[in-house]
Amino acid sequence: MKCRRCAETAVVQLRSHNSAFCKPCFLLFFRRAVERAIDRDRMFTRDDHVLVAVSGGKDSLALWDVLHDLGYRTEGLYLGLGIGDYSAESERKAMRFALSRGLKLRVLALGEEAGSFTISEATSTTRRPPCSACGTFKRHYFDQAAAAGGFDVLATGHNLDDEAARLLGNVLHWQLAYLAKQQPVLTPTHPRFVRKVRPLYRTSELESATYAFLRGIDYVVEECPNSHGATQLVYKDLMNRLEQRMPGSKLMFVTDFLKHGHPLFADATAHPDLGECATCGMPAAGERCGYCRLVSEIERRRAQAVTYSRA
Amino acid sequence: MKCRRCAETAVVQLRSHNSAFCKPCFLLFFRRAVERAIDRDRMFTRDDHVLVAVSGGKDSLALWDVLHDLGYRTEGLYLGLGIGDYSAESERKAMRFALSRGLKLRVLALGEEAGSFTISEATSTTRRPPCSACGTFKRHYFDQAAAAGGFDVLATGHNLDDEAARLLGNVLHWQLAYLAKQQPVLTPTHPRFVRKVRPLYRTSELESATYAFLRGIDYVVEECPNSHGATQLVYKDLMNRLEQRMPGSKLMFVTDFLKHGHPLFADATAHPDLGECATCGMPAAGERCGYCRLVSEIERRRAQAVTYSRA
Repeated sequence: MKCRRCAETAVVQLRSHNSAFCKPCFLLFFRRAVERAIDRDRMFTRDDHVLVAVSGGKDSLALWDVLHDLGYRTEGLYLGLGIGDYSAESERKAMRFALSRGLKLRVLALGEEAGSFTISEATSTTRRPPCSACGTFKRHYFDQAAAAGGFDVLATGHNLDDEAARLLGNVLHWQLAYLAKQQPVLTPTHPRFVRKVRPLYRTSELESATYAFLRGIDYVVEECPNSHGATQLVYKDLMNRLEQRMPGSKLMFVTDFLKHGHPLFADATAHPDLGECATCGMPAAGERCGYCRLVSEIERRRAQAVTYSRA
Repeated sequence: MKCRRCAETAVVQLRSHNSAFCKPCFLLFFRRAVERAIDRDRMFTRDDHVLVAVSGGKDSLALWDVLHDLGYRTEGLYLGLGIGDYSAESERKAMRFALSRGLKLRVLALGEEAGSFTISEATSTTRRPPCSACGTFKRHYFDQAAAAGGFDVLATGHNLDDEAARLLGNVLHWQLAYLAKQQPVLTPTHPRFVRKVRPLYRTSELESATYAFLRGIDYVVEECPNSHGATQLVYKDLMNRLEQRMPGSKLMFVTDFLKHGHPLFADATAHPDLGECATCGMPAAGERCGYCRLVSEIERRRAQAVTYSRA
């Protein structure tokens, strides 16, 4: 198999693009794809200060690597989720990456920040699925760090596979409000929010894994242990089977949605006016934000458990 | 496994309904499900004259059987597609079914009606995929027969699996106009159209196959030979995998779409004013209807082929 650009021996085949590339041409292809997504969707410019949420996995580290390489002003944010060895390993990989490139990385950890709880504390007391509690925690700490640090943009490593699986799940349940919010750029709906962007939404998991591998990025290969049996993985499996039969399906599904479907959902959805959370001061639709409601639910249930055990 | 209704030994398990039934209770369950769909969506009443499009397969014969059994005024329409043994066998099964119940069946055949062509003639000359030409032919002859016969309603045997697969395909490509038209009841948009209904849209392929089997209906088991490799089968396979992992997914996907998604697509889609086809007089958006455009394309290409072979 030969590289489509230079006719050297290819190291990676991308059936979705009916292409194959050698190492230098793939790195160029990937960087350009990310840069084009940033420009096309007006995510940010070289004047903006970008906070990159990094998990230690291939996607977020590949993203940070590309952004740094392209000359954007970035800083990393790692949030430790307190998931045993998985979190310890992720933190190490994220820190090594930052140090090796002389990049600034903020490290926060659930359970260590004042008043915070780990995912397992949240799930064992409230019985929420771990991915639900994790999402609430992440959103809160990411938003808070971006606002407190005076960043213009918060960038996450969600790739095409993530977006396609999420879109499929939202469509299978016709979650209109979620469909209205599924965009690669979320414009702030409150002064304490910053713009949120997903520069990898057009590049697949295979592409970011290949990029990370070819760049010698040392990333956490293991999937989060909490994700076993997660619904999202069922949707990913279905989209992979479709992609196998009809290469390019994921990209078409997501981009056609943004072009044709999303405007209908956006128009049909009312945006509630956001006030400020009475507890933490972050934007909230009601009296308190989702994060503070979850935290107080955990505190209440823990207090009840203590009362019962004393009775 | 016991019947959910009467606790006798069950003969069929329906994971999507978390249920199992003995023979009499399943037949009752299926009939009621069809009757409820007819009533809920105001498809037709016992005063209406219903033309049932029958293919000789399990779905359309099960539908006709239930409608007859429930006391609706029905007549069948069989359209021979000229697909060799498959069509010959289908026609025999449809005719036997009608004769055994003293029901009236109209039989038409592509290639035998004046000016008509078979599917293979259409695909070999125009290179359209067979399922595309077949759909155009069926719609034309069904619409024409329903209008000419003075029927109030045209009923087809599309089941839940058909609807879910079609919906998935429409969503994966964000075909807004098709999504706007995907409904179990299509209200006529022209005086020469009759109402079109799909009373089995909430009952699965497994359910109609079980009903047909338990009722001793002799139906064509083979799939249409033209369907091999059809995109629709890829979507059906994906929906089956999802249903396997999360029973009830197909029904929820389709019914939630009708409740939440469809109104948005319907509102966003303009309905073109229909005139009459200059050739056949049936409703048409342009000068001629899709059927007559296809027929004249076949005629033109055949004439060209004759000219070339003479040259």
